[in-house]
Amino acid sequence: MTKPPAEFGLIARHFRPLAGEGSLGLLDDAALMTPPPGRQLVLTADAMVEGVHFLPDDPPDTIGRKLLRVNLSDLAAMAAAPLAYLLTVSAPRGTPDRWFAAFATGLAVDQALFGISLLGGDTTSTPGPVSLTLTCIGHVAPGQALRRAGASVGDEIWVTGTIGDGALGLAALQERLPDPDGSLAVRYRLPQPRLGLALHGIASAGMDVSDGLVQDLGHLCRLAGLGARVEATRVPLSPAAAAAGPAWRKACLTGGDDYELLLAVPPCRAAALQRLAEAAGIAITRIGAFVPGEGVLILDEYGAPVVLDSPGWSHF
Amino acid sequence: MTKPPAEFGLIARHFRPLAGEGSLGLLDDAALMTPPPGRQLVLTADAMVEGVHFLPDDPPDTIGRKLLRVNLSDLAAMAAAPLAYLLTVSAPRGTPDRWFAAFATGLAVDQALFGISLLGGDTTSTPGPVSLTLTCIGHVAPGQALRRAGASVGDEIWVTGTIGDGALGLAALQERLPDPDGSLAVRYRLPQPRLGLALHGIASAGMDVSDGLVQDLGHLCRLAGLGARVEATRVPLSPAAAAAGPAWRKACLTGGDDYELLLAVPPCRAAALQRLAEAAGIAITRIGAFVPGEGVLILDEYGAPVVLDSPGWSHF
Repeated sequence: MTKPPAEFGLIARHFRPLAGEGSLGLLDDAALMTPPPGRQLVLTADAMVEGVHFLPDDPPDTIGRKLLRVNLSDLAAMAAAPLAYLLTVSAPRGTPDRWFAAFATGLAVDQALFGISLLGGDTTSTPGPVSLTLTCIGHVAPGQALRRAGASVGDEIWVTGTIGDGALGLAALQERLPDPDGSLAVRYRLPQPRLGLALHGIASAGMDVSDGLVQDLGHLCRLAGLGARVEATRVPLSPAAAAAGPAWRKACLTGGDDYELLLAVPPCRAAALQRLAEAAGIAITRIGAFVPGEGVLILDEYGAPVVLDSPGWSHF
Repeated sequence: MTKPPAEFGLIARHFRPLAGEGSLGLLDDAALMTPPPGRQLVLTADAMVEGVHFLPDDPPDTIGRKLLRVNLSDLAAMAAAPLAYLLTVSAPRGTPDRWFAAFATGLAVDQALFGISLLGGDTTSTPGPVSLTLTCIGHVAPGQALRRAGASVGDEIWVTGTIGDGALGLAALQERLPDPDGSLAVRYRLPQPRLGLALHGIASAGMDVSDGLVQDLGHLCRLAGLGARVEATRVPLSPAAAAAGPAWRKACLTGGDDYELLLAVPPCRAAALQRLAEAAGIAITRIGAFVPGEGVLILDEYGAPVVLDSPGWSHF
């Protein structure tokens, strides 16, 4: 009558090894955390649903890592450093133990990579698709979080890394696009959170690109009461995205799942930004500027506006 | 090209009114929180899935409130006070706006009741059932969180409120049991988190009863290396649960969804516990004691062991 329920075994086997300081071994009703003195906490929560945010046959180890990384990307967008996370997993009864094992193994790899550990969470059954959420907690010096509001006329628009690989990776996994070296699929499954850039005092506004470059840039514009002009030819593409050809160029601009940083930077801070990015080993590219007015204008190589069907992704 | 996506309207209409200090109007990638100085944070995350944790035709306002309350109950189990929460909502495309409106209205009622506000989160679509998670953040004086481990031989076992109403409420909503005044259904849909008891120095261990009294008491036993004896006739039942008759007595002991506190209290602290509970207007009842050995033994009115098919709920 005192045998623990089966889910306790599951938690002990797969999730307890991920549990760090304050998690109380995942044995209590809640976790404890002593916040770093004199710091502000930065908190974000993202959900991922099978068939919406990842594919049913994605390897479970990359599913866990993507979940963690999209949340870390939100911390990066606020120029915050990660501390710990809480995780909820809702999976169908009968999900094989090896699925949980692989899922947790992926998380263990990324915990080591990003210096973060599991604090707590919940494991439940669901009659539907696997549904995951992760709440990530980071910290920042008070008043130094990077915000989405704050761009000024003349601020340059910079992005990290390359744009469009996530969307093209999804297309490749759906066999709508060749992906000879598999690099696009990797970018869809394993986004790279751009942590470690001390952007306070350099960027005037920023966010991460999760729902499409054009749509997300529209958010920075609306919050600043400004417009933006982007030169399409400046938008950095990976070799694989460039090889996909012009037919996929618009998908790169609106596709989402990039998890690159999109920054507003005054021209006088551009050199400082470049030094910061070089020190962190992160490529950055200037793609345009904020202008008076409203709306995101994408210009092609002849200076003509690029017409887009949709600026990006919406769940509803 | 800069119109915000439809989900932004949904978030602005229903969730922004819930957003409090540090939420940045739900417009940024993450929220900010300045932790109360000199306090430990207490963090918990729970998932609720339609058809598992609530019924498809439960009123949406009670679904949001139940989600918040089960998390607040975890804070209560650690003797912590609530600060703020993050919320993720995954709902099918086409979920009517009035569903979100009612869901958020329920949360607004409970935010006022429990002095807590929304910090951030995520809204996504799902091809499956509605899946919700809530991460709740509370605080406690350092070292004063109540833990599950720590019961000693001779400690009395106390519970708050009444046991079994949640399980019987589910049975009533499934038309397996009459519920003339509807009180059982209310208890299933709106558990009462037992916040506000300063249990440090009074209880030696504690948790909330979410998966069945017998199973959850088994956790306190295993962590203490002890057994427990419970007198079934002492387990407090509501008038409605008592009226359900002896056929439902075992369901009360193992059914789950109680969200009452289960406490280990040294006999010399019992009077202090009673004063605390009286001041907070919370009924408490002594139902048994911790004993050497292992296992939870339930004794009937003749002192004979009650045989249970299953000690409680397991998702897997």
